[in-house]
This record gives sequence, C-alpha cells and structure tokens, in this order.
Amino acid sequence: MTFDNSLDARTLALDSAHVFHSWSAQGALSPLVIAGGLGSRVWDHAGTTYLDFSSQLVNVNIGHQHPAVVAAITEQAGLLSTIGPATANLTRGEAARRIVEHAPDGFEKVFFTNGGADANENAIRLARLHTGRDKIVSTYRSYHGNTGAAIVSTGDWRRIPNEYARGHVHVFGPYFYRSEFWATTPEQESERALHHLERVIQAEGPGSIAGVLLETIPGTAGVLVPPPGYLAGVRAICDTYGIVLILDEVMAGFGRTGRWFAFDGYDVTPDLITFAKGVNSGYVPVGGVIISDAIAKQFDDQVFPGGLTYSGHPLAAASIVGALDAMAAEGVVDNAARIGRDLLAPALTELAEKHAVIGDVRGEGVFWALELVADAETREPLPAAQMAALKKTMLQAGLLPFVQDNRIHVVPPCVVTDDEVAEAIDIYDRALSSLD
Amino acid sequence: MTFDNSLDARTLALDSAHVFHSWSAQGALSPLVIAGGLGSRVWDHAGTTYLDFSSQLVNVNIGHQHPAVVAAITEQAGLLSTIGPATANLTRGEAARRIVEHAPDGFEKVFFTNGGADANENAIRLARLHTGRDKIVSTYRSYHGNTGAAIVSTGDWRRIPNEYARGHVHVFGPYFYRSEFWATTPEQESERALHHLERVIQAEGPGSIAGVLLETIPGTAGVLVPPPGYLAGVRAICDTYGIVLILDEVMAGFGRTGRWFAFDGYDVTPDLITFAKGVNSGYVPVGGVIISDAIAKQFDDQVFPGGLTYSGHPLAAASIVGALDAMAAEGVVDNAARIGRDLLAPALTELAEKHAVIGDVRGEGVFWALELVADAETREPLPAAQMAALKKTMLQAGLLPFVQDNRIHVVPPCVVTDDEVAEAIDIYDRALSSLD
Ligand SMILES: Cc1ncc(COP(=O)(O)O)c(C=O)c1O
Ligand SMILES: Cc1ncc(COP(=O)(O)O)c(C=O)c1O
Repeated sequence: MTFDNSLDARTLALDSAHVFHSWSAQGALSPLVIAGGLGSRVWDHAGTTYLDFSSQLVNVNIGHQHPAVVAAITEQAGLLSTIGPATANLTRGEAARRIVEHAPDGFEKVFFTNGGADANENAIRLARLHTGRDKIVSTYRSYHGNTGAAIVSTGDWRRIPNEYARGHVHVFGPYFYRSEFWATTPEQESERALHHLERVIQAEGPGSIAGVLLETIPGTAGVLVPPPGYLAGVRAICDTYGIVLILDEVMAGFGRTGRWFAFDGYDVTPDLITFAKGVNSGYVPVGGVIISDAIAKQFDDQVFPGGLTYSGHPLAAASIVGALDAMAAEGVVDNAARIGRDLLAPALTELAEKHAVIGDVRGEGVFWALELVADAETREPLPAAQMAALKKTMLQAGLLPFVQDNRIHVVPPCVVTDDEVAEAIDIYDRALSSLD
Repeated sequence: MTFDNSLDARTLALDSAHVFHSWSAQGALSPLVIAGGLGSRVWDHAGTTYLDFSSQLVNVNIGHQHPAVVAAITEQAGLLSTIGPATANLTRGEAARRIVEHAPDGFEKVFFTNGGADANENAIRLARLHTGRDKIVSTYRSYHGNTGAAIVSTGDWRRIPNEYARGHVHVFGPYFYRSEFWATTPEQESERALHHLERVIQAEGPGSIAGVLLETIPGTAGVLVPPPGYLAGVRAICDTYGIVLILDEVMAGFGRTGRWFAFDGYDVTPDLITFAKGVNSGYVPVGGVIISDAIAKQFDDQVFPGGLTYSGHPLAAASIVGALDAMAAEGVVDNAARIGRDLLAPALTELAEKHAVIGDVRGEGVFWALELVADAETREPLPAAQMAALKKTMLQAGLLPFVQDNRIHVVPPCVVTDDEVAEAIDIYDRALSSLD
C-alpha cells in the first residue's frame, strides 16, 4: 500500500462534480475520502487511518477486505461474473443453501434481490399475494429502504416526502426509554405496545391487513432491543388474524447481535425474513427474502409477479458463500457475542456511569446505542450542534463513529478485537469528557 | 476450463430446492445451467455451449467475461470492495465522470443505484420533488422495474398484480405495426400518439403531472423504435406543461442501438436519464440516474430524500470504469452500429421475405425484434405453443434466443462477430423453416 496525497484532492473534486449523494443537500457535504481498509480499519490516500466503529452503514460484519471474501469474488469474476436469473447457476444455489441452513426449519427458498429495499418490496409483495389483502403495518421508528413500497413502510422522516403508495399503516413499537404508552416497566411497555398494535389492527380491519413488517431490533431508529414477550406477542396477534409476519433482518441479521439471526434470541418465528448487509458484508450488492414453505408452495403453480435483472447474481452469490463460510470457520458470530457480553456491555455501562450525558445504553453483540441527553431527568436529546462537535472530536481522534440523531451507535465489525474495543472506548470516553 | 457433468445435476438440485425465481411459477421451471462464458458464448458444466443471442436480459453488451472488466473488478476487490455512500471514493468518482462524458451537455451528476428499478424509482422521486406534482405518465407497452413505484409505472402485465401506488397514468405509445390510432403511415402514428398523450395530460390536469417516463425504445415490449418526430414531440409537450421528461435507457443505453444513448439518434434531450444493464454489462449490480443541472442544483440546498446502502459501490464503479474504457478503446459501440446496419438489417429483412410467419422486423444496432404472426393479413400473433417449439429448436441448435410473447428479440452482445451473426441467422432460418 503506497499512499498518494494528491489522490485525495482528485477524489474530492470528482465527487463534488459528479456524484449525487443519498439523503443529503449536495451543497453541504464534506465526505471523508476512503481508499482502502482491512478488518476494522479504513484509510484515505494519504494514509490517515480510522477505526471503523460504524461498519459503514452497519454492513461490514466480517470487516473490511476479508481475504476469503475477496478471493471468492476474484474466483467467480474469472469464471462467470453475471448470468440471468432464469438460468440455474451453481454458485447461486450454494449461496441459497448456506442461507437457509442458518434459517429455522421450514424455510427452504431464497428470492435474491440487490439490497435491503427490494428485499422488503418483495416480502411485501409475497405477503399481499399470500393473504389477498393490502395493508402493511410497520412502526414509526423503522427504516425499510428507499423504493416505493419500502419507503412508505419506513416509519422515520424519510417516508414523509415519499408517500406515493397506499396501504401502509404505522404504529408505535416498544421503546421503554421514551415510552409512548406511559409504561413504568419493560414488561408493561411490551404489553401496552402489543395492546396498541392489536387495537390498530382491529380498527383498520384485520381482513385488510396482509403483513406486519418489523425490524427484529430496529436499527437506525436506535437499536431498540424489544422488551420481553413483545415479538412472541406480535407472532400471536398475527396468528389470530391470519397476518403474515415479516422480520426485517437487513441490519440485525448475520452476526450483528452475536447470533446468525437476531430473532434467534426471541421466542418467535416469522413467515418471511428479509436480509442484505451482513449476509456478505456488502462486498457485492445483494439482499433477499427467505420464504417459509407455506408461502413458497403457493408459488409452485401461481406465477410470482416480481423479478429483477440481477436476482441471484453469481458474483454476489460467490461473496455470500465466501463470507458465510469464513464467518462459520472463524467463529465470527461467536466473537460478536463475546465482544458484546464481555467487553461492550461492561465498558459502555461504565461510560454511562461516568458521563451523565449518556441517558441510556442498549444493545447486544456488536449492536449498541448510547443515547445522549441534555438532561438526565427530562431526557431531552442532546442538541445537534453538540452531536456534531462530538462527531468531529471522534474523527480527529481516529475513530469513524456512527452518529444518528442524539445517539452514538457502537457498531464495529463482528471481527473487532479486544484491543480495538479498548481503543474505541477510550476515544468515546475522551470525546464525552470534552463535552463536559 | 475442465468440464464436470455431475455439477450440472448438483446445480439443478440446489436450484430447485433453494432458489426462488423471478416472474415464474416455481413448479414449472426447467432452467438452463450456465457455468461459464466468453464473448457471445456461454456453457454448462458438461461443456455444452450456446451462442448467446439474448445477452441474458439484454444486459451483457460487452460480452461475457471481458478480460478488462474482470481485471477491473479483481483489482478493486483487492483494494476496497465496499464503502458507504457518504464517503468520497476515487473509483466512484471516475465512474461518474465517464458516465456524464457520454451524456449531453448540461448533465453533470450521477445518482447511483443497484439496478434499473431503483434508478427509475429515484428519477420519479426527483421529478416529483422538482415539480411539486404527483402523477407519472408512462406507456402500457413498457417495463420499468419491480419495486413499488417502478412496477406501477410499468405498463405491461407485471404491473397489474402489483398496483399498490397511486399517481400513475398509462397511455398508448406509438406502435405502427399494431396501431391503436388507426394510423396508415408512421408519420400519422407519431402525430396521433402525440395527440393522445397531450389529450390525456390535459384530461388528467397538466398541473398534476410530474413526469413522463418513457423507454427511448421500448425493449421488452418489442423493440418499438419510435416513429419520426415522436420523441421530439413528447419533449415539446413536456415543455409546454412544465413536465419532467425521464428517458429510461436501462435496456437501450450504452451501445445497444449502436450509440452510447439511444436518444442520441433522435432530436430530444431528456431531463433525467436512467441507466443500468449496458453501463457495466451487469458484471456487478448497478444502475443510476443522470441528472440535468437544472434539477441537480435544486438539491444543493434541499435534502434529497432517497438513498441506499450500496449507492456508488466501489466494485460496481470499477466495473463501469473497466467496461466503458474497454468499449471506447475497442470500438464496441461502433461494432454494434455496423453489425446492425451491414449485417442484421439485410439478413433479418431477407428472413422476413423468406418466412411469411415474420410479420414485422424492427430495430437498430444489436437491438431487433422479429414479430411472428399466424396470419400475415390479420397479424394474429403466433400461438404460444409454436413459440415454445421454436425456442426449443433454437436451443437444440445451440442458440440461446430471447423469446418474448410472439417475438424473437435479436439481441446479441455488442461485440458479436460477423461469423456469429451468420451462424445465428442460419439457426433462425432453420428453426423458422421447421415451423412451415
Ligand atoms: C433494517 C433495514 N432494512 C432495510 C434497509 C434498506 O437496505 P438498502 O439500503 O440495501 O436498500 C436498511 C438500510 O439501512 C435497514 O437498516
Ligand atoms: C427498460 C427497462 N427499465 C428498467 C428495467 C429494470 O431493471 P432491473 O431489472 O435492473 O431492476 C428493465 C429490466 O429489464 C428494463 O428493460
């Protein structure tokens, strides 16, 4: 790796001239140049290195540039980079087999897409066709992708300027730290959130509702670990009313929680599972839906009216095979569980004891949020200006943080080492101290 | 390349067990196993080779396994496979620069997506935000992708089971061979299609219409080359009513017509251009929107409310750089033009003279359709059973055809050689003779 400072300038010039960025005003950008990476670190062309505690968009679960995934991509690129979805391709089949091996019994088929949004699009399509009903219930605190149905299932602000589609209903999910239900215990939060969900379903008309779409652990919304009994309760409500339960595991799946699927930690089995990100750590764009047998068999005779040019793309499939095999062989998911339990849980709790600005600590595995508040009593969120200052301090200290609203999401790759955790905790600690 | 017959069986077993296919009843599939390819040929594990006159889903413009694209992917995979869209990345900038170099003056920015559907989704989003209006007008004979807004812009049957979204209006486009306007000349077809479009716009309320979305040359619908004056007329109508013109170049763009963009052959400049497929021949999933300066500058201050995890993916960007540089250096687009003009045009016309079943021949470059009819007078489409038999005959003769409804689309890679064209014409000829 040789470094060349002038390339950073060229990168920024090309970027500002020609690249239109997501979710932004284009005039207000100051993007970090990233030229390379390895494991939990990334760097620019000048050799400035950052410890990546964002995993980018919480997708690089296996770390940057894992040699086994790079090798799998290189091998498949030399063999057959692309082939149409109507063909049968061995690498695609091997990828699908590995994915269903991690799913519960009764899930045998995978529909591949290009990312998380179209995974949710197709899950919604399957739920609507399976039930013959239209509406999809999801939570306000959620993100499901940027296409026409996915963006209106999304609950957060990104939905509002994009409300083209009909048939989407939003409810409040459980969030004990900021309860919408005047709950005083997590158990009560769970019960009341279930009551609210069931009442909305009844009021909308259960016969009109095709699916309930939930992130198993809402991610961008703040790593909102569900309280005891909530997911099992949602499953029971769906069963009562004949509603398809879609769990969005795009961010939570494939290792992030220290389990292959986040829902493995709860007493719940969905009907459809959507995935992307962690399945191959995003080395090649891919996502998909894992379809339960009961729904899949309906489409043995009935035409499934959905598709895309790159469904089951061989290069994406190779990266899935490479990533899942390496994750299994190297105990990457167990590492995430251990890091969460033995290092992040105690260290973040200690940070919270030291810094009054931390109002809440939530998470598991390598999927945590620190919620920062201006006032511990009122829980008023820390203002944006202070969050921005905090972000700057962390970047200057060499840490690439994931800052969202008034929160720091602590979301390193699942391969993060003990030393890297210690290094990051120290940077968080000093940055938080600089606020005081 | 060593061949191993048993892998075909394994591929089919994995495929039927675990892979859910696009636009199909899963019980009725008999997919071709494809293990490798080069240029215009693909093969299975046993070494059975096919001449690929489908370019898969009309996307492999540069041919299979072009060494320059494979090398670009391999190099970038070793450097940095993935990085979040909020960063600046050199390869991404280089890809964007090359794309806008082929676009008309006044197009400087590219928003990258994962494929064609989300390219159209984001173009629709831009048109709606730019105009503050809601409705999108597109044609019945069109395909724009499988997500919530793209699928309802789509005109063909794939829309009907997916009509979730509001704000989509469909019109008939020009199609002289099966005129909806009782036209007796192509000029009249053009005028009347324009009249129809304008009347629908007036009747819907021009102030409610954000965009007109058209495939420059509707592809899947039958390579419906627009008649003289049509696209210029649409441009004029859009200007009159302040409507954004989106040209979908997903299938027609990047060489297919023998031009970089299909609309370069017409007297029209759109406001937004959507692309995918040919830009990198699908070696890595990617698509995008090329945004005119007038629309782009609105988002210097205003937040663009769209995004996706893999926007501007470095591996996809590298494959774009590799493909576009090789296409320019090797005269791939000129080859497509020459093949169309000097070989396919005369050879397909000759086939039509010989076989009464060919009712119409349309196209340019390596983008042609033969429309097959049971009766030359009534133009009744050739029945599905005969189309299926024809497809089987062609496959047995070693040609992978693109068969759609009652048509054969003649859509080889842009790198197809004179000998390969002769070979394919011979196979078409014999297959059509077997019908008689
Ligand atoms: C839970 C969840 N679902 C869906 C998506 C959308 O995925 P993509 O950006 O690949 O479309 C995201 C992306 O952040 C996500 O976090
Ligand atoms: C003209 C056109 N637009 C959009 C699409 C959708 O592209 P994708 O399948 O990559 O979503 C297609 C796919 O065939 C197409 O032909």
